[in-house]
Amino acid sequence: MAVYTQVSGAALAEFLSAYDLGAALAFKGIAEGVENSNYYLETGTGRFILTLFEKRVNAGDLPYFIGLKQHLAGKGYPCPLPVMARDGSALRTLEGRPAVIITFLDGLSPRRPNVRQCRALGEGLARMHLALADFDMTRENALGPAAWTKLWAGRTQAANALQPGLSDTVEAAFVQIVQARQTFSSLPRGTIHADLFPDNAFFLGDEFSGAIDFYFACTDALAYDLAVCLNAWAFDEGHAADGSALEYNFSKGAALIAGYQSVRPLSAMERDALPVLSLGASMRFFLTRLADWTSTPAGALVRPKNPLEYAARLAFHRRMESAQGYGA
Amino acid sequence: MAVYTQVSGAALAEFLSAYDLGAALAFKGIAEGVENSNYYLETGTGRFILTLFEKRVNAGDLPYFIGLKQHLAGKGYPCPLPVMARDGSALRTLEGRPAVIITFLDGLSPRRPNVRQCRALGEGLARMHLALADFDMTRENALGPAAWTKLWAGRTQAANALQPGLSDTVEAAFVQIVQARQTFSSLPRGTIHADLFPDNAFFLGDEFSGAIDFYFACTDALAYDLAVCLNAWAFDEGHAADGSALEYNFSKGAALIAGYQSVRPLSAMERDALPVLSLGASMRFFLTRLADWTSTPAGALVRPKNPLEYAARLAFHRRMESAQGYGA
Repeated sequence: MAVYTQVSGAALAEFLSAYDLGAALAFKGIAEGVENSNYYLETGTGRFILTLFEKRVNAGDLPYFIGLKQHLAGKGYPCPLPVMARDGSALRTLEGRPAVIITFLDGLSPRRPNVRQCRALGEGLARMHLALADFDMTRENALGPAAWTKLWAGRTQAANALQPGLSDTVEAAFVQIVQARQTFSSLPRGTIHADLFPDNAFFLGDEFSGAIDFYFACTDALAYDLAVCLNAWAFDEGHAADGSALEYNFSKGAALIAGYQSVRPLSAMERDALPVLSLGASMRFFLTRLADWTSTPAGALVRPKNPLEYAARLAFHRRMESAQGYGA
Repeated sequence: MAVYTQVSGAALAEFLSAYDLGAALAFKGIAEGVENSNYYLETGTGRFILTLFEKRVNAGDLPYFIGLKQHLAGKGYPCPLPVMARDGSALRTLEGRPAVIITFLDGLSPRRPNVRQCRALGEGLARMHLALADFDMTRENALGPAAWTKLWAGRTQAANALQPGLSDTVEAAFVQIVQARQTFSSLPRGTIHADLFPDNAFFLGDEFSGAIDFYFACTDALAYDLAVCLNAWAFDEGHAADGSALEYNFSKGAALIAGYQSVRPLSAMERDALPVLSLGASMRFFLTRLADWTSTPAGALVRPKNPLEYAARLAFHRRMESAQGYGA
C-alpha cells in the first residue's frame, strides 16, 4: 500500500508533455511496492506504471536500475521496460521526485504461491541470472553483511521485547555467518534481484509472467538470490498470530530449487552454502523489518511487517545442516 | 487508500468463472474510495474495477446502488456500469464480502479543481439530477439531521480538545438548522449523490468525464447535493497546518452554481436555502470526520481526515446570510 506523493493534474500533464504517449486518460494510485509511489497510468497509446522514487531510494542508483530493466527487456525477459521521453531520458522529475514511466506487465502476484508456481519462480529466477550474465553495470548490496551491524546496533532490547532471548539467537547467527564468509566470497557472483518476493513476481495461472521492483538489485552471490526466494516462497504461515510459528514447506522449497536447477544447475559449493546463505537472507529481512518496526511512528500509513516472521526463519536455518534439508 | 480485503488468486479465478469476462490478466489494489476495497481488474475482454464492500456499507442498500448506476448508465450518464454475471446478477460474493465488478471509467480526479472544472462539475451534477428524475427506487439519507444527534453524542469534549469553544459553534449551528427544518422539507427532492467530492469526479482536461462512488446516494433535497459540492469544491486551503484556516473561493463557488443552473435552474426557495443547506452539509462531514477521528485506533492503516477542515466551513456558513454570498 504505497502512495506517498500526490501528483496534481497540472504536474502530470506537464510531465507527460515530454513523452510521445499522449495525455492521461486514467491515473490511479496503486497498492504496489513499499518504497515508492506507484500509479496506474493510461494514455491513448497504452497502459503504464508511473513510479515516483521516495527518500529511501538513492537517486544515484536509479540509472543502474533503469539500465538493468532495459538489459533484461532487451533479452526478452518479462519485466517492465522504462519508457523514454522524446529527449531519450527515462529518468525524469515529477512533484520534486525522480520519476520513471515503465510499461505495464500483465499478471497477478500470488497471495499463497502453490508448488507449481514455486517451480516456475525458480526457473524464472535462473533465467534472470542468465539474462543478466552480460550486464556490465554493478551495484554493491547495500543490505549485505556490512550493513547488518549498523542495523542491529541499539536494537538488542527491541528484539528481546519481541521475543525473550531473541538477541542471543541473532548474535549466534552472526557468528555462524561470519565463519562462513570465506565460502561466500568464492561463490559465483552476478546481478541478483535480491527481493523477489511473491509481491514482485507475476503469474498467469501457474505460469511465471514476469518480475517487477528491481530496486534492491545488486551484484552478489547468485545462490544468495535463491536463498532469498526460499525464505520468501517456501514457508507457510503457522498458527501463531504474531508470525512466530512458521513451517518450511519442503515441497515448495524443493520445487523452487529444482526449477532453478533446471535452468542453471548449482555448483557443489553453492549447494553446500545454501543453509548459511538462507540464514543470511533471513538475517537481512529480519534486521530491516526490526529497524522499520522500531522506527515507524504510530499513526503512519504503512504498517510495518512483523520481524518475528523472519526471526522464525532465522531459527530454522540455524538448525539446518545441509542443502538436503531444503529439498536440494 | 483503501484495500482492506485481500483476494487470493484461487478465489478470484472462481469468482470470475461466473462471468463471461475471461481470466484475470492483471489485478491491483487501488487507492480509490475510503469505505471499500477496490481493485483494478483486467481480463481479455476489458478493464474493470472490482469492489468489495466492507463493513460500513449496509448490504441491504447494495441493490439500490447498483440499480442507480444501471439507471444512470442507461441514460448515457458517464458512470461505472455494474457488470452482470451469466446468471444476471451483478452483486455476488468474494472472500466473504459482497462484491461487484463495474466498468472502468476514463478520467482523472482533480487534486485542486480549477474554476472551469467547478463549472463543469456543477453541470454534471445537475445532469445527474435530471437523469435520475425518473429513478423510482428510494433510500433515506442515513447521514441526515436525524443521524447527527447520535454522531454528536459524547463528543463535546473531543470537539473542544480540537479547538477550544468548538462545541458551542456546533450547537449553535444545530439550532440554526433545526429552525430551518420547515424550509428543508418543502424543497424539491430527488436522488442525490451526497458525496460528490473531487475524489469521486473524473475529468479529461477540464471536461467532466463522469462520477463514481455512489455509496452515499439517497433521496433528499436536490439543492443539498449542490451544497455538499460547494463545501467540497469551493474552499481553498488556508495556511494553518491543521486545516482550521480555509477560504471560500468565490470564483469557484459561483462557477459551480452557474454550471448547475445552466442545466437545472434553482427555484427561489432553493436559492434562499443555500446557506442553511451548506451549513447542514458542513455539519454532516464535520460530524462523520469527528466520529472517525475519535474512533480510529492509533496504528490503523487509514489516517482519519481532520474534522477542523469542516469546522472552519461550518463557521463560515453560519455567518452567511444569503445565497449571494456564494456567488449565486
